[in-house]
Amino acid sequence: MDFKTRAKELVAKMTLAEKLSQMKYDAPAIERLGIPAYNWWNECLHGAARSGMATVFPQAIGMAASFDTELMHEVATAISDEVRAKYNEYKKFGDTLIYQGLTCWSPNINIFRDPRWGRGHETYGEDPYLTGQMGCAFIKGLQGEGKYRKTDATIKHYAVHSGPEKERHSFDAQVSEYDLYETYLSAFRYCIEHADPSAVMGAYNRVNGEACCASKTLLKDILYGEFGFDGYVVSDCGAICDINKNHKLTQTEAESAALAVNNGCALNCGSAYAHLMTAVAAGLLDEDTVTEAVERLFEARLRLGMFDSDCEYDAIPYEVIECEKHRALNRKMAQESMVLLKNNGVLPLSDEIKTLAIIGPNADDVSVLLGNYNGTPSRYSTLLRGIQDAFDGQVYYAKGCHIYDSTLHDWAEHPMREAIIAAQKSDAVILCMGLNPGMEGEEGDGFNGDYSGDKPDIELPDSQKALLEEILKTGKPVIFVNVSGSCVNLSRADEACDAVVQCFYPGAEGGAALADVLFGRVNPQGRLPVTFYRSTKDLPPFEDYNMENRTYKYFGGSALYPFGYGLSYTSFAHTLLHVDAAAQRVRVSVKNTGTVDGTDTVCVFLKKVCGESRERYRLIGIGKAPLAAGETREIEITVDGTHLAELEKGEYEIVFAVEN
Amino acid sequence: MDFKTRAKELVAKMTLAEKLSQMKYDAPAIERLGIPAYNWWNECLHGAARSGMATVFPQAIGMAASFDTELMHEVATAISDEVRAKYNEYKKFGDTLIYQGLTCWSPNINIFRDPRWGRGHETYGEDPYLTGQMGCAFIKGLQGEGKYRKTDATIKHYAVHSGPEKERHSFDAQVSEYDLYETYLSAFRYCIEHADPSAVMGAYNRVNGEACCASKTLLKDILYGEFGFDGYVVSDCGAICDINKNHKLTQTEAESAALAVNNGCALNCGSAYAHLMTAVAAGLLDEDTVTEAVERLFEARLRLGMFDSDCEYDAIPYEVIECEKHRALNRKMAQESMVLLKNNGVLPLSDEIKTLAIIGPNADDVSVLLGNYNGTPSRYSTLLRGIQDAFDGQVYYAKGCHIYDSTLHDWAEHPMREAIIAAQKSDAVILCMGLNPGMEGEEGDGFNGDYSGDKPDIELPDSQKALLEEILKTGKPVIFVNVSGSCVNLSRADEACDAVVQCFYPGAEGGAALADVLFGRVNPQGRLPVTFYRSTKDLPPFEDYNMENRTYKYFGGSALYPFGYGLSYTSFAHTLLHVDAAAQRVRVSVKNTGTVDGTDTVCVFLKKVCGESRERYRLIGIGKAPLAAGETREIEITVDGTHLAELEKGEYEIVFAVEN
Repeated sequence: MDFKTRAKELVAKMTLAEKLSQMKYDAPAIERLGIPAYNWWNECLHGAARSGMATVFPQAIGMAASFDTELMHEVATAISDEVRAKYNEYKKFGDTLIYQGLTCWSPNINIFRDPRWGRGHETYGEDPYLTGQMGCAFIKGLQGEGKYRKTDATIKHYAVHSGPEKERHSFDAQVSEYDLYETYLSAFRYCIEHADPSAVMGAYNRVNGEACCASKTLLKDILYGEFGFDGYVVSDCGAICDINKNHKLTQTEAESAALAVNNGCALNCGSAYAHLMTAVAAGLLDEDTVTEAVERLFEARLRLGMFDSDCEYDAIPYEVIECEKHRALNRKMAQESMVLLKNNGVLPLSDEIKTLAIIGPNADDVSVLLGNYNGTPSRYSTLLRGIQDAFDGQVYYAKGCHIYDSTLHDWAEHPMREAIIAAQKSDAVILCMGLNPGMEGEEGDGFNGDYSGDKPDIELPDSQKALLEEILKTGKPVIFVNVSGSCVNLSRADEACDAVVQCFYPGAEGGAALADVLFGRVNPQGRLPVTFYRSTKDLPPFEDYNMENRTYKYFGGSALYPFGYGLSYTSFAHTLLHVDAAAQRVRVSVKNTGTVDGTDTVCVFLKKVCGESRERYRLIGIGKAPLAAGETREIEITVDGTHLAELEKGEYEIVFAVEN
Repeated sequence: MDFKTRAKELVAKMTLAEKLSQMKYDAPAIERLGIPAYNWWNECLHGAARSGMATVFPQAIGMAASFDTELMHEVATAISDEVRAKYNEYKKFGDTLIYQGLTCWSPNINIFRDPRWGRGHETYGEDPYLTGQMGCAFIKGLQGEGKYRKTDATIKHYAVHSGPEKERHSFDAQVSEYDLYETYLSAFRYCIEHADPSAVMGAYNRVNGEACCASKTLLKDILYGEFGFDGYVVSDCGAICDINKNHKLTQTEAESAALAVNNGCALNCGSAYAHLMTAVAAGLLDEDTVTEAVERLFEARLRLGMFDSDCEYDAIPYEVIECEKHRALNRKMAQESMVLLKNNGVLPLSDEIKTLAIIGPNADDVSVLLGNYNGTPSRYSTLLRGIQDAFDGQVYYAKGCHIYDSTLHDWAEHPMREAIIAAQKSDAVILCMGLNPGMEGEEGDGFNGDYSGDKPDIELPDSQKALLEEILKTGKPVIFVNVSGSCVNLSRADEACDAVVQCFYPGAEGGAALADVLFGRVNPQGRLPVTFYRSTKDLPPFEDYNMENRTYKYFGGSALYPFGYGLSYTSFAHTLLHVDAAAQRVRVSVKNTGTVDGTDTVCVFLKKVCGESRERYRLIGIGKAPLAAGETREIEITVDGTHLAELEKGEYEIVFAVEN
């Protein structure tokens, strides 16, 4: 009997009250039916999260920078193994606490619309195509391909969610139909069509007046209607109460809950669904609708093998957690997540460098390895530790400045001079700067009180700007390592430093992976999943959800580093050989024109040449070409065929990079 | 010309205003006399502090537990090398900021009177003799034995200072003459007589009504009079303003400042001495007194070689900072600082142990390595990291609980179960518990708001008690590692765990050193520098400075682990061979009666047998006896001769341990 049928039969045995009880994320047991309690809330954005020891992979934005869907699938497979291993063990104790289950509220496939959004680093960047590709790889890795699902993936936050964090509980995003489909819904649709995610999480905000978790348009019409979604919808935590309390669309929790369930939101993170019985009694909700919702939930639990004894994933042992294989995979992903943005030849570091200064507030900070929604690694290497472990010479470490506070407190340490001394005494300086997950994060995370997790601008803090200038004055070669989950204005670093590396929040193996790149043990291949702008002035108002002048697709100005940008220690040349519009494939010849081996991350863009398209560029395909020095190889790349026919009309041409 | 004469000549050229300007800790330049600005405030309690990269040795209380004065001298020599190396470099830039100078406000030789005092871990424990011994070794190491002083040591806080932190700016410690001399002043006198410290820092509190930094009794009569101190006195920071603001002994800053200078306090940390000119104008202070104070200060600066070009320490290179030699020395000190309190044979860990659970909130916390008044290590091993690096088998790490918060927050991680799983899956459990420097510290440090850095009691937090019980239920061998700078009630651990190790705040090499002990690569030799009581009820009121019923000397109850206690992986037997009262020496035969090599820390106590003495015990000598298994050796130990003659009267006898 299939899971759907079994779910129907099981739910049919429940009373109305029992059904309603199952629609809360912390669902109680129904002992008479042999149904144990279950807490639906788990997280695994870049590793099994908030449940102790785990392999902590690079933050999502960093993994997106790998542009490597195969590797992403391997990573997600490792993650779901660890989630399962934990679940299997917790189950032995009958535990049903938060972060112990199989239903993961990951990935975050929102579009990183504006670099000021604090949660942007949880996403795969600004491009719907890349987001769809990485999202699918991640979902498939989480869910597995067995008879049962290994874990449930939940794509979030549906939809049009990208700040401001401070206003998320009351914000109404105004979006055109074009932007809605081309930008905000595109990856959701793609993932649903190609990876069958078990669940969708509704966002806090409104879209065009309707609350996302209770929106007829978004849920009933588009998600279940147009997109043919067949899973369950869960609300973001507290989002249903927001409908009456903050969005003021309803008067009571009961009304909010009824509106949500009627439009397809089966599961409530929060407490609003405690009022569902009131809603039924008031005639706001009928039992058939409830039944349908609960059937979806039990189909999912059954499909996860929770009620069977032959689930192939029950045997995943605890020992997989942070095992050697996963740690090696993590290091590989971290290596691929690093994006080389500038290099005047100082990198890879030469053997002649005997003394290194490692300077900056992010050099020895564990929090920047971990990002947010993270687990706890039992072993990790900070940037400092990673470089030290890889380098035989003398290392001078100096924090140099507070990460954002420029105040020279009377009786506090004044770290600047030590940094200058360290630089002066060294053959080269690795400057580890940028942000941290306390400076860009979720509502409630942020140090920057007024911004509630969002960034006020894209500048480096003044404390770091001052440190950079002092270090530059020493005249030493400076490698600027920017640690951040978002675009930071790196104009000054680009202008004045010898090399610039963007390393995002690189996970537990971050320091080791950075060292691999700096010393040339691996050749960088990461590409920017977001545009690096030159100035906050380049951005439309943060609250404006119109995509005009946002992201590489619509930005009319000159970016410092465009989307898709990323250097190698070698160079590559591309020749387009063939476009097969029907098969949605292109053939490209790639040549390693340099003197060292390396892997080219091939990005296939449509570039607008003329015509009505609002897009300037559109990423339609990505591929990887590992090439020895001097080697040429032909590769086939599957592409998005939407506008491929227009190539012949001359509206678009195919290019391999976004020009600045 | 000697430094004193040169100082006189230099000060003679100054105007009154110039002289007064030099009595502030942030003394300005007097350009016409070629005197550069100088900031007197530096710290080096257990390593060059608050000035960036440094070898961070175990916190003072841990170094005291080594009972190893020779090693302490080596450590202090390394510390002063690092302070000098930094100074030499800063000097090239003309820098005169805080924490860049040569005048170190260390060591803290207060008596750790009550385990609730938050700053107790800065001290060498509860015993005046041990404090004097360790203090002298430290001072000599800091100051060197050259023509110039390498750095200035400042013994603090003079006097009778040990909490409550919250009331320190207004507290009046009531002390009997007996306790004053026997307990509170003893180590100050000893250090002044044997190690010639350059400076003394006055405490915040009053003693018997007089403010310490301006006390005729403490400064003029006792310090400069009785003890023959010949250096300078500096106030604790803001302590002079306290005299009028909080102690209410004077009306104005000018009066406070005059009172302090008149009684011998030459240097002011704070701002009160800005009012000295007012004091002189008002006739509260005469210029001769000022001149004498400023001469003391310039004698010190001259003696540090600041005005000469032939100082032997100017050549100490920057490369000594955290050099391999210092790191090795640090590891040795950390090894010696560990005190084995219980061992049923589980330690050292056998080769048959293939899987280890490392559990607890202190397992992977860097802050507990560092204590307070610390520098920044560029390399360090947390307890977890140290054990992992030393162990080839599988390690399961679990934090297990918050270090003090027992609240199970709704949407937060619940770490207990993972800890139980880790224990169940392992052959043995290393439980890393205790406190951290945020829970016991200085006024303003503490998380425990109401206590301002002090501890409310000597209990483990409830969160950890609950974790301990859960881990014990697994039935696995449990090694309880207590990380704290003070006595914690370890009764339950002693009763129920297989081994108990006290590791204090063990410095940058703490994890490596702990692993050395756990795996038997070194044999522990540390001894408790404080009594470990069984209950807060064993203690007199915290505010009570009467020593009755405090410390091993006067405590009438049964301690869990007495002062001087500490096990080895072997056993030792002692035979007193000879007492030479005149020469203040005893000869002891020590035999290693066990099967492994080890070093015995020989403690020579006088034990009261009868008569009038208020002391029950009195430590009078310490020695180290490295012995191969089965080896016997005679050692000579220099002892405090004060009561040695009374041995013959039968009032005391010599013993080698405090009985419980």
